[in-house]
Amino acid sequence: MKFSERLHEKLLPIWRKNHDHPFVQEIGNGTLDKEKFRFYMIQDYLYLIEYAKLFAIGAAKAKDVETMGKFAAMLDSTLNEEMSLHRQYGEKFGITPKEFEEAAPSPTTLAYTHYMLHVGQNGTLADLVAALLPCAWSYWEIGKELSQIPGASEHEFYGEWIKMYSSEEFGQVAQWCIDLLDELTEEKPEEELAHLEEIFLNTTRFEYMFWEMSYNQAMWPTDE
Amino acid sequence: MKFSERLHEKLLPIWRKNHDHPFVQEIGNGTLDKEKFRFYMIQDYLYLIEYAKLFAIGAAKAKDVETMGKFAAMLDSTLNEEMSLHRQYGEKFGITPKEFEEAAPSPTTLAYTHYMLHVGQNGTLADLVAALLPCAWSYWEIGKELSQIPGASEHEFYGEWIKMYSSEEFGQVAQWCIDLLDELTEEKPEEELAHLEEIFLNTTRFEYMFWEMSYNQAMWPTDE
Amino acid sequence: MKFSERLHEKLLPIWRKNHDHPFVQEIGNGTLDKEKFRFYMIQDYLYLIEYAKLFAIGAAKAKDVETMGKFAAMLDSTLNEEMSLHRQYGEKFGITPKEFEEAAPSPTTLAYTHYMLHVGQNGTLADLVAALLPCAWSYWEIGKELSQIPGASEHEFYGEWIKMYSSEEFGQVAQWCIDLLDELTEEKPEEELAHLEEIFLNTTRFEYMFWEMSYNQAMWPTDE
Amino acid sequence: MKFSERLHEKLLPIWRKNHDHPFVQEIGNGTLDKEKFRFYMIQDYLYLIEYAKLFAIGAAKAKDVETMGKFAAMLDSTLNEEMSLHRQYGEKFGITPKEFEEAAPSPTTLAYTHYMLHVGQNGTLADLVAALLPCAWSYWEIGKELSQIPGASEHEFYGEWIKMYSSEEFGQVAQWCIDLLDELTEEKPEEELAHLEEIFLNTTRFEYMFWEMSYNQAMWPTDE
Repeated sequence: MKFSERLHEKLLPIWRKNHDHPFVQEIGNGTLDKEKFRFYMIQDYLYLIEYAKLFAIGAAKAKDVETMGKFAAMLDSTLNEEMSLHRQYGEKFGITPKEFEEAAPSPTTLAYTHYMLHVGQNGTLADLVAALLPCAWSYWEIGKELSQIPGASEHEFYGEWIKMYSSEEFGQVAQWCIDLLDELTEEKPEEELAHLEEIFLNTTRFEYMFWEMSYNQAMWPTDE
Repeated sequence: MKFSERLHEKLLPIWRKNHDHPFVQEIGNGTLDKEKFRFYMIQDYLYLIEYAKLFAIGAAKAKDVETMGKFAAMLDSTLNEEMSLHRQYGEKFGITPKEFEEAAPSPTTLAYTHYMLHVGQNGTLADLVAALLPCAWSYWEIGKELSQIPGASEHEFYGEWIKMYSSEEFGQVAQWCIDLLDELTEEKPEEELAHLEEIFLNTTRFEYMFWEMSYNQAMWPTDE
Repeated sequence: MKFSERLHEKLLPIWRKNHDHPFVQEIGNGTLDKEKFRFYMIQDYLYLIEYAKLFAIGAAKAKDVETMGKFAAMLDSTLNEEMSLHRQYGEKFGITPKEFEEAAPSPTTLAYTHYMLHVGQNGTLADLVAALLPCAWSYWEIGKELSQIPGASEHEFYGEWIKMYSSEEFGQVAQWCIDLLDELTEEKPEEELAHLEEIFLNTTRFEYMFWEMSYNQAMWPTDE
Repeated sequence: MKFSERLHEKLLPIWRKNHDHPFVQEIGNGTLDKEKFRFYMIQDYLYLIEYAKLFAIGAAKAKDVETMGKFAAMLDSTLNEEMSLHRQYGEKFGITPKEFEEAAPSPTTLAYTHYMLHVGQNGTLADLVAALLPCAWSYWEIGKELSQIPGASEHEFYGEWIKMYSSEEFGQVAQWCIDLLDELTEEKPEEELAHLEEIFLNTTRFEYMFWEMSYNQAMWPTDE
């Protein structure tokens, strides 16, 4: 069994909770409160900046020029294309570029990103990929699932989001990460696999918390 | 004004929320549910392991032998003395060494420690000290405050905790960190000070969340 | 005075030694032994892989999306364009892709790259830029200087090298790095500037040692 | 075969060159020019500061409290004991504390330390141990070998050096590192072992270059 198959099988119950989260479901049926999505978009923008850094660290950790080059291309397209698409999409929700620029991360955004960043910087390349994979992989699955709902991909506000994450282009990035993790884990002793599983589990859990945070528009409890 | 004075003054409202948290107050008046403290002790043990790594990173980042040596001494005493004191204290609450060993971090523990670790590893020495300081400093203040409550330091279960954090020895560590931050921030441009203030603010907020997590014995929402 | 001007003025004597090195001069007048250049090309290829990692670390260290994006673009073009140009150019000297792939770094290549990588990863963004700048800047100057020699840019073997490093495109990268360093050093206390100067001095010295290594085709003394 | 045995067997020819280097031999027979040793002591002092950082990074990378604690103890004793012994020993050669403090690293010192630091920070714990081991291990072997020479351990200037590195206490540190590497490499795939072998080979080669640098009192060629 490939390592990615083991992960998917073992973490399916939590994985399912992510798919079933009201935030995700209400994107699909088009009923999500726009204020909640607005909050999400801003936090997701901040998240994406840190997520991109994982590609940068991946480029610096990779042991062959080809893998380095692939991380470099993903980093470049994230920062020099996706970020501006994100800002454009934000306009629909009245988010100005300045608001994106000056936004502060929520505790969950800070927690999730810094967990990945430390694991990625301090660990092996496999650790890094295990950390960043649940986001890419589950978004792809969610995108494909929601795109099956009649009309969902044409929704005035959320259709664009569904189209992006169900796209073949996005799927290729997710698949490349899956394949890389499978390749990096070949021949690894069980102790290392268990460690990778724990990382993957943690960021899967952080995915859930990110949906939860967005649905509740949750910032710091001390700031209330 | 020293930079530490600026921080203390500016963050007093949040700082105060930490002191006033029911978990802290109930340690002081001796009414805290032992199960809550038991939960706290285990998470605090896991926290301390990661916190110690900040001293290690500090030793590697310091630019003179004296500062390196001080971080090294704090690292050594944390790992080779405090950890075993912690395990001993845990016996009072029926926590076995094995339980400490095998415990899993809560999301808040993971979030707080990895925030500090990434900031410490990726930033300057001043960033690292700004990240680790709220814990040391606020524990010292809380220790001193609670030790003023008649009988609190002799409480069967919580007296030892209060005595440790109000001790002169612990105070010296906190003070050394304060002095180091003041020294490192001399002549720094406002842009850098604002960045340090943000780090200090974030870990102060994580302190509050750590009390909150302990009081609610909160693990991952997905595991429920 | 801009910080880059201070650097250039202060380090001119060593800078000059780089320009006057026989390896550089013989590229210019077309008399360089092809075996020496062959050795250089292989080591430079290995150097470039590590140099690219500095752009990756720069993207991860930068504090705004624009600077991140610029590092990302440089990383992407280095890995996904320049490396293959380098391999193509190598054919002129009979270097096969396999030979590039399997080559081992000389002690000087290892020393120079790992000095930059550690400084870049452990220090500030300004430290990183100070480390990588002497290579970009001095190659640009050398390229422009040699391109003034009649016929040099049309030399069968070395013309291509001179054209690349005297090109406007390459100059823009060098200039961007210079401007970034000037920007990052505004308002910095003298202590930090002196530290940056030391880094810049060290990699300027390593540049000289790289020419020297190439001219002497020097590998490990223990392997002889 | 334990991994350490494989390393020792395979690298014996280079290992032997270190033992046979005139700098080492002349320490043993007491004829070494004091000026050469003086140069060595100062560079070795700078080396030791960076070497200690590897123990700090080791403490931060280790996955159990016991290994962390051991690295912490080695870090603490290096910085808070050995460094001052080193400064005391330096007095015999007229090196003042100020001279130690203000000394600048040679290119070989910079190369060797930054190679280890980057490998240690960016790689696994096994990578770090493979990088730092040749120094500890070969000094121990050299110390024991030279201590067999009649009178060598009582030599007015070099006896103290021989006694230190042939001591049981020093040997225990070296042996602990060997055992840790053997433990960390159990069950590892050949690809990783080959990578570790390369690291170990490189720092073994840098050991030779360090003797060579000391014997020639070699600073930067550009500073001549």
